[in-house]
Amino acid sequence: MSTTLFNLQLDHIVHLQHAYEQVLAKYGFDSLVIYSGHASHHFADDHATSFQTYGHFMHWVGLADIQHSWLVIQSGKKPQFYLHAPADFWHQPTQLPDEPWLSVIDVHQCTQALAPPVEGRSVVIGDIASTTPDIQQALNAETASNEVVRALDELRMFKTPYEVACLREANHLAMAGHEAAQAAFIGASGELDIQLAYLAASRQRESSVPYQNIIGLNGHAGVLHYQHYDITPPSQRYSLLVDAGRRFRGYCADITRTHAGPDAPAIFKELVTALHHLKDDIITRIEPDTSFVELHQQMHQALGSVLVAHDIFKGTGEQAVSEGVTRAFCPHGLGHSLGLQVHDVAGLRHPDGSAAPAPSEHPALRLTRILKPGMVVTVEPGLYFIPMLLNPLRDTSLPINWTLVDQLMSCGGIRIEDNVVVTENGYDNLTP
Amino acid sequence: MSTTLFNLQLDHIVHLQHAYEQVLAKYGFDSLVIYSGHASHHFADDHATSFQTYGHFMHWVGLADIQHSWLVIQSGKKPQFYLHAPADFWHQPTQLPDEPWLSVIDVHQCTQALAPPVEGRSVVIGDIASTTPDIQQALNAETASNEVVRALDELRMFKTPYEVACLREANHLAMAGHEAAQAAFIGASGELDIQLAYLAASRQRESSVPYQNIIGLNGHAGVLHYQHYDITPPSQRYSLLVDAGRRFRGYCADITRTHAGPDAPAIFKELVTALHHLKDDIITRIEPDTSFVELHQQMHQALGSVLVAHDIFKGTGEQAVSEGVTRAFCPHGLGHSLGLQVHDVAGLRHPDGSAAPAPSEHPALRLTRILKPGMVVTVEPGLYFIPMLLNPLRDTSLPINWTLVDQLMSCGGIRIEDNVVVTENGYDNLTP
Repeated sequence: MSTTLFNLQLDHIVHLQHAYEQVLAKYGFDSLVIYSGHASHHFADDHATSFQTYGHFMHWVGLADIQHSWLVIQSGKKPQFYLHAPADFWHQPTQLPDEPWLSVIDVHQCTQALAPPVEGRSVVIGDIASTTPDIQQALNAETASNEVVRALDELRMFKTPYEVACLREANHLAMAGHEAAQAAFIGASGELDIQLAYLAASRQRESSVPYQNIIGLNGHAGVLHYQHYDITPPSQRYSLLVDAGRRFRGYCADITRTHAGPDAPAIFKELVTALHHLKDDIITRIEPDTSFVELHQQMHQALGSVLVAHDIFKGTGEQAVSEGVTRAFCPHGLGHSLGLQVHDVAGLRHPDGSAAPAPSEHPALRLTRILKPGMVVTVEPGLYFIPMLLNPLRDTSLPINWTLVDQLMSCGGIRIEDNVVVTENGYDNLTP
Repeated sequence: MSTTLFNLQLDHIVHLQHAYEQVLAKYGFDSLVIYSGHASHHFADDHATSFQTYGHFMHWVGLADIQHSWLVIQSGKKPQFYLHAPADFWHQPTQLPDEPWLSVIDVHQCTQALAPPVEGRSVVIGDIASTTPDIQQALNAETASNEVVRALDELRMFKTPYEVACLREANHLAMAGHEAAQAAFIGASGELDIQLAYLAASRQRESSVPYQNIIGLNGHAGVLHYQHYDITPPSQRYSLLVDAGRRFRGYCADITRTHAGPDAPAIFKELVTALHHLKDDIITRIEPDTSFVELHQQMHQALGSVLVAHDIFKGTGEQAVSEGVTRAFCPHGLGHSLGLQVHDVAGLRHPDGSAAPAPSEHPALRLTRILKPGMVVTVEPGLYFIPMLLNPLRDTSLPINWTLVDQLMSCGGIRIEDNVVVTENGYDNLTP
């Protein structure tokens, strides 16, 4: 860990302590208790499912695999970390990293899963319903109202310099994976081997990725959350879409690249280039007080122009947007908040915690905020050839060049995604 | 799929139908409903945890990733499979394999997650509590008693020729991974890269493995369920323990190999060889009517002899067993039942479903059955150098050669594991 990150981490904890004290004061509590959560088991089986530590817990300790543990935050006192550390020769005990936060948080190793001691009027957040009745009974704390949780969510929306540094490093590590994935594609690997190349180069195992990597060849590039890795490479190689991340001290990178294969039509390569430019152009518009909903709408306008410029739509760009054509080619949102969770909290809230839902014509948009310094967002325009969405348009008189669309179907689609922090004066693209 | 497996699969379904009809008749039901289960989400997050289809559901369809779906089994009628298949451009729809079972099971594609139609007096098994209140209300079936579930568990204990063929193929595929893991170890890879080499050679992703592969270098070989993969290779290479499997049509291989590294003391290599012989010797004792508890006790006697023969214990083999020394060197059981779940059901039951718990001095033993033809078990003797278990013996007068034990600590331990089917006349080792 570099000296810079060392100092930033301490500043981050000081900032958190201060902000939590404000929340405690506002809602009249003496202490706030956070439960880490724990893995559950497959039904009628003794093997555990995958697990991710509760985001507000990670906010303090940056570890995504802490289970059965507690944090107690109090005004004017050091945070207390009750770490579940049973005497267990079956598993490797949790080893805490040698990091600065350990100098400002008291760690208590607990051999049993117990409720932590709390003083005064306390409030608890986390998946308490999953704990034992004994723990629930022993826990001397009120269940947090939505208001308290939303105040902490809102805090998560604004990243400290430490968090931005972590997100930058996560991007750096993920990009090594993306380069290896591209190389594997050039080497004619199939989806499974491209995924394994990604993991090897980004130095992580599949169960540590912040979200299941999407590795889609050909038509699979058009399945937005494509969830498999085919074992056998296809005979024709039209396209590869890789949407894959990496955690660094809990913080998530979320990067997408699309590559044209040797069998792709020339227009597909041109469209990939156009989407790169479109992504870059949207990013240059990021600055404080920009509306993310408006950026999303601008993406649709730009997509309309791309469809017209490449002869896929034989009307005007405005018409492509107003008639819903661009939405059939791109059904997802421009991006989302990014942090300790890939789809980070509070993206569909106003600063006061009230709901700010997606516009009805853009239901998949996950971020409706006015951008402010410290927010980190993804910018991920896409252009897909999805039969389920395009086929209904075939019965209309819309001037879509179906010959060209049919030619592109085998390529699935394109998505290009970077991670961007909103700065005081504009933006900083974290994706190298 | 070979013609042989093709025919065996149809026989398997016929056998299941007949056995289920007997259970229905015995407990007075007209139909038995099985819920597949479905993945849950990480707390306060929109990403799903890992998932495994309910074992009794897999018993019919052999697919480990079916969700939100139902099977209805009735006497004298074809099984009805209500497959959840929503119109969804976000995910790749479930694609059923082109296999014989589809010719004898009626498949209904359901765009919504609904309760299946049932006739007469019905009983349901599976994680019904996880379904929506609407489904629970619409489902016209009684919750199964423990007796019904145990009758189906008991059925799982005896593998059909089709199931044995699947387990054999799973072993074959897993062994390719083990060979690659050994090669990666010889090439000085660390745990992460050994795991990725295993996955590449066994043609699977981490989230498809039947249990989390244990890839332990050096001291980690002595952590029985070691759960991490270190990114960096250690400077000294004493040992590698690989406990890793593979599913084939739902059925699990569970194989362990231990390799001595270039920095291991000579005695460790000798002990690895001794444990291979010990495993082989136990396997030759497998035949109908053998008690698995007695085999476990024979493993301890054989471990006592190994400790004496290699000068680790300077008393007699009998003393090593009676004084609990062998249990400190091997705290787990000889093996377990293997099938659609790695620790398969009914291992701690009598044939009538009543409890057959592990002996008090061997609490970790997962199988207490009298072996019968069709059972498939693991045979996995181990010998470990675990400080938490051995250190208490240092204060005794037991004649343990601590100099030698201390020399072996850096090697962690040894486990050798094969998968064996009990035949009419003896055994058949499925591990190549």
